[in-house]
Amino acid sequence: MTSVSPTEPITVRVDLGARSYDILIGRGLLASAGERIAALMPGGRLAIITDATVARLHLPTLTASLDAAGVGSTVMTVPAGEQSKCFAEYQRLCDEVLAARLERGDAVLAFGGGVVGDLAGFVAASVRRGMSFIQIPTTLLSQVDSSVGGKTGINSRHGKNLIGAFHQPDLVLADTALLDTLSEREFRAGYAEVAKYGLLGDAAFFDWLEQNWQDIFAGGPAREEAVARSCAAKAATVSADERESGQRALLNLGHTFGHALESAVDYANERLVHGEGVAIGMALAHEFSARLGLVDDAVVARVVAHLQEVGLPVRIGQIPGQMPPAGTLLDIIAQDKKVSRGALTFILTRGIGQAFVEKGVDPAAVRDFLEEKLRS
Amino acid sequence: MTSVSPTEPITVRVDLGARSYDILIGRGLLASAGERIAALMPGGRLAIITDATVARLHLPTLTASLDAAGVGSTVMTVPAGEQSKCFAEYQRLCDEVLAARLERGDAVLAFGGGVVGDLAGFVAASVRRGMSFIQIPTTLLSQVDSSVGGKTGINSRHGKNLIGAFHQPDLVLADTALLDTLSEREFRAGYAEVAKYGLLGDAAFFDWLEQNWQDIFAGGPAREEAVARSCAAKAATVSADERESGQRALLNLGHTFGHALESAVDYANERLVHGEGVAIGMALAHEFSARLGLVDDAVVARVVAHLQEVGLPVRIGQIPGQMPPAGTLLDIIAQDKKVSRGALTFILTRGIGQAFVEKGVDPAAVRDFLEEKLRS
Repeated sequence: MTSVSPTEPITVRVDLGARSYDILIGRGLLASAGERIAALMPGGRLAIITDATVARLHLPTLTASLDAAGVGSTVMTVPAGEQSKCFAEYQRLCDEVLAARLERGDAVLAFGGGVVGDLAGFVAASVRRGMSFIQIPTTLLSQVDSSVGGKTGINSRHGKNLIGAFHQPDLVLADTALLDTLSEREFRAGYAEVAKYGLLGDAAFFDWLEQNWQDIFAGGPAREEAVARSCAAKAATVSADERESGQRALLNLGHTFGHALESAVDYANERLVHGEGVAIGMALAHEFSARLGLVDDAVVARVVAHLQEVGLPVRIGQIPGQMPPAGTLLDIIAQDKKVSRGALTFILTRGIGQAFVEKGVDPAAVRDFLEEKLRS
Repeated sequence: MTSVSPTEPITVRVDLGARSYDILIGRGLLASAGERIAALMPGGRLAIITDATVARLHLPTLTASLDAAGVGSTVMTVPAGEQSKCFAEYQRLCDEVLAARLERGDAVLAFGGGVVGDLAGFVAASVRRGMSFIQIPTTLLSQVDSSVGGKTGINSRHGKNLIGAFHQPDLVLADTALLDTLSEREFRAGYAEVAKYGLLGDAAFFDWLEQNWQDIFAGGPAREEAVARSCAAKAATVSADERESGQRALLNLGHTFGHALESAVDYANERLVHGEGVAIGMALAHEFSARLGLVDDAVVARVVAHLQEVGLPVRIGQIPGQMPPAGTLLDIIAQDKKVSRGALTFILTRGIGQAFVEKGVDPAAVRDFLEEKLRS
């Protein structure tokens, strides 16, 4: 704890009327979690939901800070990994929060990555029909993506994230020092979502990322700025469209192809993690846009070059092992996105920062494109 | 179906901004469910959640109406009774709704009493983070109480309704002819909640109930009016206080004592059903108010006389079997309601239609009062 010198955090306000909240971003924030939470909910108690890995690395710092501020807490640990987003863990956690006699004004605190955030958020949404919710995301992906927007949930045997609730947090603390303990691969995968915010709507941010990515990876001040600008971009989109009826779809840039690839490898993380799927998906979305004459090849080359420079994959062929044929990938896409009168919806682009929703994509064109990409 | 001649239904609007919806009340409404639902959600499909008893009596009428209007539906049946409000049924139903490939714009339809409504509502709130929700309540209790207000949920081993969501329906159809198949005891228990709306805030409605209760029980036009006025009373309270922070507590008139009695008999319905507990609880709340000098004995006598006239119990001694001592009942009350600095919160009254929230009730006074009532 003493090796970290906390500076004043950056604050991003998520504007959702009565459900508005702040995201604080800073290096070393975790050590001040106790006093910040005590100020937010005087007398409130916490159920801390975390996974075994995060608990080992960072829980002592959090509980020391809570104890010092007089915030009572109970820790509930789930196994690390996607399989914890299931009914059994959800039921067990709901029962444990009730057994700890927490009331509606007390809070569930999610301390971990996206899995812990999604699961703990759904528990917070459900116990006593909605408790307070605080997030301390510990991965780059969860700091810039899943901790903004209020989506919570678990998986069903019919698919991922199919059972859940929209439940906004009351506070998010993103401590960028926690990212120092991520593997290079996990950090890089989270970075794909950072780059996405530039590509979908902010060319100046993408320029800045090209200049500053090394400082972001190294943990310099650019890391806080990158997280803050990403959260601000997502917050602006979510504020405009909380329940995902329109523009929020832009956040899916790279995700239609990416999800199909993740599904094709059965979500086997040793072959492909989410952010890597998004990176390949973004490269494909740009290449497909170029194929349709929407964007110049030079733009595509620039996007691909940046993703490659940071070490992200950009071609389907970089995924280890056998991939299914184009027809199968197209079936997955069609199933995922709902075909409307024979046309597919994709996020396409007219240039860096100029993504848009296209609802009239011809499935045959996607199939031809994928066939070619599977060969290359 | 031909024995029923549907008249124009009464409409009660529940005003909740973007989540506003209509409750339609009328004799024979069920036969028009299909066309009304088709008009509300053109092209939408339904997951009908019901129990075995309701399915046997009324499902053919509903499905015939849906088929005639071209509304596709899948029926999912749960066992009748409170034990269906559990995690296992919740998980099974969520999975079944997904297996039926229903999308966010499709609807879950609750066709039954309070148990089915609470369970189906929580399923609707959770699948795809919120689907449309339609209620066709089939008991008097659910028509006047649980189908208004958006509370959904299941039971945990720590207590009733502790896991759930606030999820407003898109439409409620209250067909008063369905109540013809209720047992006398079940109808009467639902009537206790109707009388409650008069007692808590509408003296003219209570006068009217004293005049018209026989027509309500017999299924005359007063029944629709009683359901409509009850729904309107609850709707007004809920609109003013959707998340139960203040005035909504008035709806608990009779429920603090009533819940303690239900809990004391372990929710054994053969000894006491919810509405009977509420009837005894309302009599006790009036008697206790008189004891505190808040209301005249003549008012208490009038309230007790009406409840007795319709056949509802008004004394603890009318509950079959042994009751626990006053201290145990007080413990249940204190646990249920959270003691704030040694004082209890009760809904008390200054007269018919003049209930109010009193947060400073002395536990010792409640104990003395209950001791005396257990002897009488």
